Amino acid sequence: MIIMGIDPGYGLVGYGFIEKTPKGIKVIDYGVIDTPQKEATPVRLAIIYDCIVELIKKYKPDEISIEELYFVKNITTGIKVAEARGVIELACIQNTGRLYEYGPRQVKQAITGVGNAKKTQVEDMVKNILGIKEKIKPDDASDALAIALTHAFTNKVLVEEFGIK
Amino acid sequence: MIIMGIDPGYGLVGYGFIEKTPKGIKVIDYGVIDTPQKEATPVRLAIIYDCIVELIKKYKPDEISIEELYFVKNITTGIKVAEARGVIELACIQNTGRLYEYGPRQVKQAITGVGNAKKTQVEDMVKNILGIKEKIKPDDASDALAIALTHAFTNKVLVEEFGIK
Repeated sequence: MIIMGIDPGYGLVGYGFIEKTPKGIKVIDYGVIDTPQKEATPVRLAIIYDCIVELIKKYKPDEISIEELYFVKNITTGIKVAEARGVIELACIQNTGRLYEYGPRQVKQAITGVGNAKKTQVEDMVKNILGIKEKIKPDDASDALAIALTHAFTNKVLVEEFGIK
Repeated sequence: MIIMGIDPGYGLVGYGFIEKTPKGIKVIDYGVIDTPQKEATPVRLAIIYDCIVELIKKYKPDEISIEELYFVKNITTGIKVAEARGVIELACIQNTGRLYEYGPRQVKQAITGVGNAKKTQVEDMVKNILGIKEKIKPDDASDALAIALTHAFTNKVLVEEFGIK
């Protein structure tokens, strides 16, 4: 099963693809969608939408995992991030129909076992789990892989609970 | 010139179409997109997107005018409204490429001449300008017509400033 993880954003959108097999989990690709600051908001939203659709067509994920927006300190940035998240959700639902959401605490809990783990702890665990040697840059890409892994682990628990192997 | 006005929302999205001719301004259509509460967020976003695209294809607006989001009291509702606004912007930019934004004060100023006018004053003026006898229901549709009219009036000023008639 191929899982796509998305860390929603406006300037930078993180994405990561992993494959979950009976042998384990491996990384397929990760990176960021970088939208040009000089462009108007609707143009940047269209770039995000087109890139997400392109990535879905390239890697054909079975399921997509996206981080929830909980709290926003800067309301102006927050509105733009939420607008971007809207077009990301749209691209996902139109092209796969299988979108799952996880909150920041759920991600930390799933990856490190601790709901209030530090950001660097999560990053280190993501590298360890996926056998990535170098630092994953930028943070948004690492966060996206963490969200994809959260879905992989959460599913595993659910499947085992129901006695399906 | 046909102008589409949009009052962005999540549960209800207001829309209004007006035609601006040398003889004056007339109303073409107005109403709301109502998204089912029982559906998940991405599904409701996809309904909004599809309806906006359908309305644009039906009435072929030359320009679209949408209200800016400034301040949000309820952050949870605010995120959903902003997500919806994102997919609306996307549908507009993909299908017309001509999207204009106005803040609430600009709308009040353009319609009533007063930046802090009451909601009912704006509603009454919209009815008068467009020769609509009955109450425009719901408010979201009236707001959308106000936003379309704001663009019509603002354009007029700009055109006259540049000496183009």
